[in-house]
Amino acid sequence: MKASQFYINTLKEAPADAEVVSHQLMTRAGMIKKLGAGVYTYMPMGLRVIRKVEAIVREEMNRAGAVECVMPVVQPGELWSESGRFQTMGPELLRVKDRHERDFVIQPTSEEAVTDIARQDLRSYKQLPKNLYQIQTKFRDERRPRFGLMRGREFVMKDAYSFDRDEAGAKASYQAMAKAYRAIFDRFGLTYRAVSADSGAIGGDLSEEFQVIASTGEDAIVYSTGSDYAANMEKAEALAPAGPRPAATQALTRTPTPGKSTCADVAELLQLPLTQTVKSLVLATDELNEQGEIVKSQVWLLLLRGDHDMNEIKVSKVPGLDKGFRFATVPEILAHFGTKPGYLGPIGLKQPVKLVADREVALMADWVCGANEEDLHLTGVNWGRDLPEPDLVVDIRNVVAGDAAPDGKGQLAIERGIEIGHIFYLGTKYSVAMNATFLAEDGKPRHFEMGCYGIGITRLPAAAIEQNHDERGIIWPDALAPFTVVICPVGMDRSEAVKAAAEALYADLLAAGVDVILDDRGERPGAMFADWELIGVPHRVTIGDKSLKEGQVEYQHRRDGEATKVPAGDIAAFVKGRLLA
Amino acid sequence: MKASQFYINTLKEAPADAEVVSHQLMTRAGMIKKLGAGVYTYMPMGLRVIRKVEAIVREEMNRAGAVECVMPVVQPGELWSESGRFQTMGPELLRVKDRHERDFVIQPTSEEAVTDIARQDLRSYKQLPKNLYQIQTKFRDERRPRFGLMRGREFVMKDAYSFDRDEAGAKASYQAMAKAYRAIFDRFGLTYRAVSADSGAIGGDLSEEFQVIASTGEDAIVYSTGSDYAANMEKAEALAPAGPRPAATQALTRTPTPGKSTCADVAELLQLPLTQTVKSLVLATDELNEQGEIVKSQVWLLLLRGDHDMNEIKVSKVPGLDKGFRFATVPEILAHFGTKPGYLGPIGLKQPVKLVADREVALMADWVCGANEEDLHLTGVNWGRDLPEPDLVVDIRNVVAGDAAPDGKGQLAIERGIEIGHIFYLGTKYSVAMNATFLAEDGKPRHFEMGCYGIGITRLPAAAIEQNHDERGIIWPDALAPFTVVICPVGMDRSEAVKAAAEALYADLLAAGVDVILDDRGERPGAMFADWELIGVPHRVTIGDKSLKEGQVEYQHRRDGEATKVPAGDIAAFVKGRLLA
Repeated sequence: MKASQFYINTLKEAPADAEVVSHQLMTRAGMIKKLGAGVYTYMPMGLRVIRKVEAIVREEMNRAGAVECVMPVVQPGELWSESGRFQTMGPELLRVKDRHERDFVIQPTSEEAVTDIARQDLRSYKQLPKNLYQIQTKFRDERRPRFGLMRGREFVMKDAYSFDRDEAGAKASYQAMAKAYRAIFDRFGLTYRAVSADSGAIGGDLSEEFQVIASTGEDAIVYSTGSDYAANMEKAEALAPAGPRPAATQALTRTPTPGKSTCADVAELLQLPLTQTVKSLVLATDELNEQGEIVKSQVWLLLLRGDHDMNEIKVSKVPGLDKGFRFATVPEILAHFGTKPGYLGPIGLKQPVKLVADREVALMADWVCGANEEDLHLTGVNWGRDLPEPDLVVDIRNVVAGDAAPDGKGQLAIERGIEIGHIFYLGTKYSVAMNATFLAEDGKPRHFEMGCYGIGITRLPAAAIEQNHDERGIIWPDALAPFTVVICPVGMDRSEAVKAAAEALYADLLAAGVDVILDDRGERPGAMFADWELIGVPHRVTIGDKSLKEGQVEYQHRRDGEATKVPAGDIAAFVKGRLLA
Repeated sequence: MKASQFYINTLKEAPADAEVVSHQLMTRAGMIKKLGAGVYTYMPMGLRVIRKVEAIVREEMNRAGAVECVMPVVQPGELWSESGRFQTMGPELLRVKDRHERDFVIQPTSEEAVTDIARQDLRSYKQLPKNLYQIQTKFRDERRPRFGLMRGREFVMKDAYSFDRDEAGAKASYQAMAKAYRAIFDRFGLTYRAVSADSGAIGGDLSEEFQVIASTGEDAIVYSTGSDYAANMEKAEALAPAGPRPAATQALTRTPTPGKSTCADVAELLQLPLTQTVKSLVLATDELNEQGEIVKSQVWLLLLRGDHDMNEIKVSKVPGLDKGFRFATVPEILAHFGTKPGYLGPIGLKQPVKLVADREVALMADWVCGANEEDLHLTGVNWGRDLPEPDLVVDIRNVVAGDAAPDGKGQLAIERGIEIGHIFYLGTKYSVAMNATFLAEDGKPRHFEMGCYGIGITRLPAAAIEQNHDERGIIWPDALAPFTVVICPVGMDRSEAVKAAAEALYADLLAAGVDVILDDRGERPGAMFADWELIGVPHRVTIGDKSLKEGQVEYQHRRDGEATKVPAGDIAAFVKGRLLA
């Protein structure tokens, strides 16, 4: 490609709404252009990156035996009612009515569409397993779209769906995808982790996220310093501390704490470590009648160490809370504790509550908690002596750095990540809902065992930039760069020698299949270099009249501090060598 | 590709709603699957065809200097209000409201989006010309979607938009696209015509359609047997007949025609040729005040020869009718003619009308028309003698086969076509509406001169099938086939020799870059051949145990009546030779 034939439009300034570096740099490099909130045009320079992502994903999906199709963007609401998602999904599902007032949705994923295909086409176990994937436009009507391609409303996703005859087959399909995903992300040249994830609303019980490591990532991911263990924060288990519980050494004491309603404030006032304090969280569950009216409510008190945070996913799996819970109302709190939040605790209740202690709290001695009276806490609290043992002892907290790894090997560390892939074992969630069956070997209909597997095609370049940039711009890994090599002739219009050398190198690299661009725009060197550093092309060759007269040209990798002089005759071989490295 | 690794699902029966052969065959061949009305999944076999279309289109667009981008499917209504299309387009524009109740549209084309890009990016004449294109999902909410991919609601289109500094530049861009389109359709191996078209509502004054010739086509296309002239029916000009008007030979006579209200009936009753009759069409135009209320209406009488049809596009360009017209109401007709439609004519009016004669009618003598009395016609009507000359003489009819070609060379012939491409010179229609300007050489802002250029990517395979099929299925041109060659081993599971020969040929063709599929499914020969004939793979090699023992395999082109025996050792070279042919 010659730059004069291409579409290059770099900007000095990022738009005011670009909060993250990938959004800033992709906009400044002319890779994306905002058309509306969360809706971007993939400009020629950006589209080249996206096409490289697509090509690698496609190759590895095909290699793993998946078959490509393309499902519609606009899908009938009827089908989405079969799975129930038309009703259960929130406003992030963009709903449309056509001219006949029929319901449609703009697909955010395609479980319904692909299950509808399977129940028509895959009639016998002999046709299984099958894995259908597409690389297609999706829409999710985010309440607050931002961060450019990181959290757009319209985006491109690769979504694959596997159909198997039984659970073992489905898990094998899942593992094949896990392997393909590693191959894909390895090829991109990104630093990433595959982490165990909670499978959440999508169902199933086996799920991994692929996270690109970046300090700006939205997700906290947890890994062990002593093993392969890795999980996202929602999923990472906090082990019970080594027991037994220490013996009580202090007497239970009512301690004035005027105006100190947080554990941190209380610990500071009493000059105790925060780890000695216990925080009280009050939840409630409701029993409904057939009309959906609340007939009975139960209040729950959850105890967590003062320095720990509640993990909502874990709480949602506690027996009794697993059918749904809510935070208690102020009247409920007053009725059970006799005081306002800030001074709550498990001792001296007006009405009984279900008492849930985090594993850590259950093994504490001489702890501090609210006294259920305003401006008053209890110190020297001890289980058994001052209050009965809790009803339940469970893991309900987020892990923190330094916790023991759940596999017993090493300690947990935490870093930030950007989710670019997610694989799920779905089981029969969709096939049962949509009555999608095949004839099994015994001649009886059986529901498909399914899995689904996503990669954020347009999010991936943004994640790559969050991981790979400097103050001058983007630094693409070779596999993702819009162009792998840029040739920058200086004074091409004034020097025939420069022009000839640039054209010769361009022709040589092109013939070798290198994705090279020759900057023949006639820009001044400073502007030209700034453009390519912003755009992030990894390999640059500069050809200038003066050094050419000395038989030299300059090579500089985007990460190099300075250029390397290379004999003009060797430059093509030199560049190819750098690409192989 | 091995068939066992692919997704093949052929059907014996076409769905009941498949009215045209391409819809029937694409469904039966497992290329598309209906998800909803006018909304189809491109199944793996069909997607391969679509990808081949895309690849050729992309290559030729790039070669012509256009640059690829991808604009959003979901576009802000605000932008569409700038061009006015949000208001003026009918219900075929799918409108959506997002969670914040903001208007969006699902793009049917992208003039607004690309003009928005140009007015931000293309600031100087030095950046022009530019041509941006995309291959992207579109939606048009057809009232009655049908014919499968021929008239779907969701479809894929290649749409390109050129930006030039002046009209001469824009016309050069237009001609470059016309050339690229010919290169594209030539490569597809289809029989097509480029025909002049009316540029219609999209504006501008230069437009060509690319029509795939097929007897099932929806469009009538007109060409000259004696020159390159070709146009669509809307556009094709009907020349004035050679004058002068013959002299009158008959007296004006009131002739009873009870119950004969059509020209055909009258001609039959009176035993006159239909070409001697004249039909009367009554239109009206309205003058509106600022409140949009009708303040004055004008009735128009259009006269056409009895065997001719009115051409609405031509009528819409007649001076006085070019601001919009409607058919006259029955009260208007009664007030002006004194009788009901069926017996109308230009003689003996109650109130004056604007009289428009088709060029043909203006030169007729001794003609027949309604007498403005029920069950009565006039014969022997002559201009000048029986009624004044018409107010306007214009071309307002569709041409018919045998008409003289407008370029004076040869006669017109008519055939059916399917529109697969359309190119328009737009002028400044969108750039003025959206105030999209660049700085011209004189330092002053000037509106972009634009063109737009579409190809129906997903419609093209359907058009190719309408042109290329037989009773057994599809017959793909090599360039469009999902696979170019299929190897059909017979009894591969029983014969090691067959398996080895099939695998060897497969490996050889694959290494030569041939898009080959090996049918290793173990189907019986009849079912296997029927599948591939239905799917339409152009080149088939059959390897059977018996003939292999005689050192022979069979080659058959999809159009061949029978197979050709080829020595087993020569088959790879033989097949490659057929591909080059």
